[in-house]
Amino acid sequence: MKAAIMHGVRDVSTGDIPAPVIREDEALVRIRSVGICGSDVHYYVHGHIGPYVVVPPYVLGHECAGEVVEVGRAVTNVRPGDRVAVEPGVPCRRCGFCKGGRYNLCRDVVFLAAPPVQGALVEYLAHAADFLFPLPGNVSLHEGAMCEPLSTGMQAVRRSGLAMGDRVFIAGVGPIGLVTLQAFRAAGAGAVYASDLAPERLALARDLGATATFDARDPDLVAKLRDLTDGLGPEIVVETAGSPEATTASIDMVRPGGVIVLVGLVPAATIPMNALGIIDKEIDVRGVFRYANTYPAALAMVARGAVDVKRMITSEYPLDRAGEAFADVAARKPGTIKAMVVV
Amino acid sequence: MKAAIMHGVRDVSTGDIPAPVIREDEALVRIRSVGICGSDVHYYVHGHIGPYVVVPPYVLGHECAGEVVEVGRAVTNVRPGDRVAVEPGVPCRRCGFCKGGRYNLCRDVVFLAAPPVQGALVEYLAHAADFLFPLPGNVSLHEGAMCEPLSTGMQAVRRSGLAMGDRVFIAGVGPIGLVTLQAFRAAGAGAVYASDLAPERLALARDLGATATFDARDPDLVAKLRDLTDGLGPEIVVETAGSPEATTASIDMVRPGGVIVLVGLVPAATIPMNALGIIDKEIDVRGVFRYANTYPAALAMVARGAVDVKRMITSEYPLDRAGEAFADVAARKPGTIKAMVVV
Amino acid sequence: MKAAIMHGVRDVSTGDIPAPVIREDEALVRIRSVGICGSDVHYYVHGHIGPYVVVPPYVLGHECAGEVVEVGRAVTNVRPGDRVAVEPGVPCRRCGFCKGGRYNLCRDVVFLAAPPVQGALVEYLAHAADFLFPLPGNVSLHEGAMCEPLSTGMQAVRRSGLAMGDRVFIAGVGPIGLVTLQAFRAAGAGAVYASDLAPERLALARDLGATATFDARDPDLVAKLRDLTDGLGPEIVVETAGSPEATTASIDMVRPGGVIVLVGLVPAATIPMNALGIIDKEIDVRGVFRYANTYPAALAMVARGAVDVKRMITSEYPLDRAGEAFADVAARKPGTIKAMVVV
Amino acid sequence: MKAAIMHGVRDVSTGDIPAPVIREDEALVRIRSVGICGSDVHYYVHGHIGPYVVVPPYVLGHECAGEVVEVGRAVTNVRPGDRVAVEPGVPCRRCGFCKGGRYNLCRDVVFLAAPPVQGALVEYLAHAADFLFPLPGNVSLHEGAMCEPLSTGMQAVRRSGLAMGDRVFIAGVGPIGLVTLQAFRAAGAGAVYASDLAPERLALARDLGATATFDARDPDLVAKLRDLTDGLGPEIVVETAGSPEATTASIDMVRPGGVIVLVGLVPAATIPMNALGIIDKEIDVRGVFRYANTYPAALAMVARGAVDVKRMITSEYPLDRAGEAFADVAARKPGTIKAMVVV
Repeated sequence: MKAAIMHGVRDVSTGDIPAPVIREDEALVRIRSVGICGSDVHYYVHGHIGPYVVVPPYVLGHECAGEVVEVGRAVTNVRPGDRVAVEPGVPCRRCGFCKGGRYNLCRDVVFLAAPPVQGALVEYLAHAADFLFPLPGNVSLHEGAMCEPLSTGMQAVRRSGLAMGDRVFIAGVGPIGLVTLQAFRAAGAGAVYASDLAPERLALARDLGATATFDARDPDLVAKLRDLTDGLGPEIVVETAGSPEATTASIDMVRPGGVIVLVGLVPAATIPMNALGIIDKEIDVRGVFRYANTYPAALAMVARGAVDVKRMITSEYPLDRAGEAFADVAARKPGTIKAMVVV
Repeated sequence: MKAAIMHGVRDVSTGDIPAPVIREDEALVRIRSVGICGSDVHYYVHGHIGPYVVVPPYVLGHECAGEVVEVGRAVTNVRPGDRVAVEPGVPCRRCGFCKGGRYNLCRDVVFLAAPPVQGALVEYLAHAADFLFPLPGNVSLHEGAMCEPLSTGMQAVRRSGLAMGDRVFIAGVGPIGLVTLQAFRAAGAGAVYASDLAPERLALARDLGATATFDARDPDLVAKLRDLTDGLGPEIVVETAGSPEATTASIDMVRPGGVIVLVGLVPAATIPMNALGIIDKEIDVRGVFRYANTYPAALAMVARGAVDVKRMITSEYPLDRAGEAFADVAARKPGTIKAMVVV
Repeated sequence: MKAAIMHGVRDVSTGDIPAPVIREDEALVRIRSVGICGSDVHYYVHGHIGPYVVVPPYVLGHECAGEVVEVGRAVTNVRPGDRVAVEPGVPCRRCGFCKGGRYNLCRDVVFLAAPPVQGALVEYLAHAADFLFPLPGNVSLHEGAMCEPLSTGMQAVRRSGLAMGDRVFIAGVGPIGLVTLQAFRAAGAGAVYASDLAPERLALARDLGATATFDARDPDLVAKLRDLTDGLGPEIVVETAGSPEATTASIDMVRPGGVIVLVGLVPAATIPMNALGIIDKEIDVRGVFRYANTYPAALAMVARGAVDVKRMITSEYPLDRAGEAFADVAARKPGTIKAMVVV
Repeated sequence: MKAAIMHGVRDVSTGDIPAPVIREDEALVRIRSVGICGSDVHYYVHGHIGPYVVVPPYVLGHECAGEVVEVGRAVTNVRPGDRVAVEPGVPCRRCGFCKGGRYNLCRDVVFLAAPPVQGALVEYLAHAADFLFPLPGNVSLHEGAMCEPLSTGMQAVRRSGLAMGDRVFIAGVGPIGLVTLQAFRAAGAGAVYASDLAPERLALARDLGATATFDARDPDLVAKLRDLTDGLGPEIVVETAGSPEATTASIDMVRPGGVIVLVGLVPAATIPMNALGIIDKEIDVRGVFRYANTYPAALAMVARGAVDVKRMITSEYPLDRAGEAFADVAARKPGTIKAMVVV
């Protein structure tokens, strides 16, 4: 079958690899839509993320949806012909994290395009059927693929403990920031403020429901947020930019008793953080690592129209131009938010 | 000052009563909008609710908003000229419930129009300033008054433990059912189903966002809900109709592990409930009694446009025709959802 | 291999059945200790529990511990020679309940001695290895078997939302009531009150830490509990007796804002319950169905000495006298709390 | 009346100050026991903590208990003659934090011995009656005073989200570390590990229930903890030592999905923290600032014998030797854990 194969840093081209064979609890999915994620691009440019190293030939891509073409004999939740979103991480199902409902923390998870596990820029994918979710009739395959980044935004909502009416500040409105913004709005945030360096991203954030937006370099950002929030700051601050400065600043910014959610991967190993501030304001700093149990909810929210992930798809590429998609995202081509490969 | 005075059962007319004097932590509010609540009508028709007995002359009304005209010397949160929503229950602030954040359970709460405490169908109300909430610029006085029933809907959301994407069934779409429906949608329900006896109420429910609606007498209601929810039923069932049958049926209807929220006051003292079902399905049955800490959130959601409480106001009456408002609501005059008295 | 076989109602005798063969993710356990549970006795006496019908020849028993003698090739958590507690229910691992951490609600769980699944009164049991838990050095096989009823008590604690210092009332101190009492004490209850009809059970409850005990027929029980709890009742009420009267009374008894936990299986299909009371006091009624993720905690608490389950074992029977064990428990032989079969 | 007056740094002596007069919601308490807290000693040695500056003459002390001698006319919860524990912080009762149950975050709290508010090393204290808690018959005045530090330990438990059986590591077993250790044990921790620099403190920790203790300088501490906790680390890590190193190390130490609770005040403004670790392990870092709603629970746990705070009181001083108490604690006099002033 055809696949977009990474042969080395900044070198992706279409080639042939063996088609997979399904096990009894798996389904074979004809992949149709694959979004390009920041982590894919990081592998494309650097060849590794921390200890995860690409050994070519390698296939990237994990934000995907397609059609079921075959199912194993133990499969009951999907049938051939079903259009499905693919949840890319399949955990061990046996450890304490899996049994406890936090399978995203499973030490033995098999996650698409996390080396050495191969990715989804292929024609056919064999995948555990219980990690496939049929699309409601009014949800497109592209939207199905977008459930993956949306899931991260939803995990941020869950980890934040949002109560209806809470005010939320989101640092960074790249793809993850934008789905996070929409997830918080859909979950009942009273207001969602956002910052970024790029004016066009801030404009899109406002289109997608941001109450007000700010230049991330604004020296008066904290003061302005306080003015908007009874003088005490937003109940929730979400860092999606991977900015050490924004991470450090979040403790000053958040309301006493509030919650800081860390999503964006900072480049540095350690960040100076005001531990006294965490204590004096009795705040929480909570990490988000992928997501668990979000796909049914993500699909319901897309079907309901409560979030608009289509609006974030800014370009399409056929599979044999997947290399171009990586190059464009890596180059931060103007106007690009989410590039989608059509297989 | 003028007030709408209840002189006996089904006997309300305008008269004069002494204007109140404020204490140092109170503000004087020129009342402008007062919604007629089901409990007001119950007092109007029956003269009592359980042990709470109206002793005429008595003033009804507790869903209200107005303008601050004077503040006590210890008041800092509002100023003369502020348009404010009035949260009608002022608790003792000293008991374990108050200190623990559940002041709605305070045994010594002073709640407008809960006899012997007088109500808000008056020109001037003296009220604890910290239970007054300034209206955002785009929120009207009528909408401010509607924050009271909306608060009950929000309390139902909070008590339900809603997670984004959960499916919700609401029995009854009178005024409380409709605000509950809107609150669940605004808080991220994946779908909201509703039932009622009145087709026009079901139509309004659909206008306000219900995913699907059902005749409450439909013998296949549970089966139809299961078809819509993977065969297992909705995660959350909210009873707002005060129907013993709906209360009893909720245990059968809800998903295993789900939550039933009881809001509507049933006429009977006891209801036959399937205790084995509560155990076998490991479900929760949770009561809602008024609300606590909802007003800031209610105002934020109205200001954001996430809920539409204006759409529920179907008639207006001047203060000197308040008696007519009670009579119309008591008679279930067609087309009446929420009657609002303009003072 | 040998097994205690139920040939009909009140007819259990030792016989031979084929020894099981393990799958790759299973271990073979040489069973050593099997406690007799109320549900076992119900099958012994009545031949069924609701829709679950015993078809002889049938093996009862699900509270068990033993020694691992063989493991499948995919097993890493236990080794031959390990002494282990057996968690008797193995869920599907693939449904929303399993993935969400509430695998006790799995519709496809395979649970020992829940017909048609055979039970543990056998010499050798093949069981999913991840539902076997090695015993700490200071925990006996009998105590390992007692982790099963203890797990129900721990599930009651978790479902109750206990906060340190809360006062708890437990209706019924049979085996489940006693483990529940101990679990609540170990988890930080400020006081644990208990009732029962049997004075000797109340005496044992006091020995195991009950703050005060009451005759379940005491007409002043609610008033006495109020005197002990600031006039408002205990924060938590747990029904373990399966008494319709106690279930109905719990709503009157519990503190406003409190939690009622239903554990005991009532004989009737429906119970008259005060739905108005659930609303007016804004209380929760929460069911407990078995347990999930409790075994590691149960073993830790036994190892720490925080609970004393040995004290509850009142008699031992060899496997070939298992029938006598059932008969004695069914007859409520004086002094019997927990009968243990030694295989 | 007599008081221990701080005239300057390291200068405390007994003198006379005017006795207070109570308001209608206050009671007058004849103070009997006052513990010396680390913050008192910090003021004694440095004259300030951050922005809080002692302006002599000043009275320290906030861990206190005594006897009610007079009550205001609005007081109903205590009577003259009652022995009471004094919760030292009285909040505004009107802000969102107070109404929401987190009154410890009130911006306008009046807290004993937090300058400019005077402290409790006096004969008579006027205090809001609802922040006085009658001592159960078997609880001494010294134990009543110890409810203040115990409350911090209990707040750490609540903030940690402890589930029964969780393993807990506590960095530092000074007075706060020891009450925290006891609170976690009483609330159902499966094991409590502790570290300190002082062997005699570690010995006391073991006496009070620590499962195992470690020298805080042990380079293999993390590895040893992993060996004790299935290779993945404790579910909860509590930092009470105010050590930047321990704070930084906690992220490496805690189990994925675990919770780090920060209690000890670090001397530095910022600490290098591994933000990537917070994300990759999806952990929570949660501050503790004083406590709220802990006193009834603290008294219940002391009365039940679930914690032993008496064991921590290592020395007594009469009021006129209070200066000596401060000097001894400041000098870390060997064997001193908690010094108690008897008024």
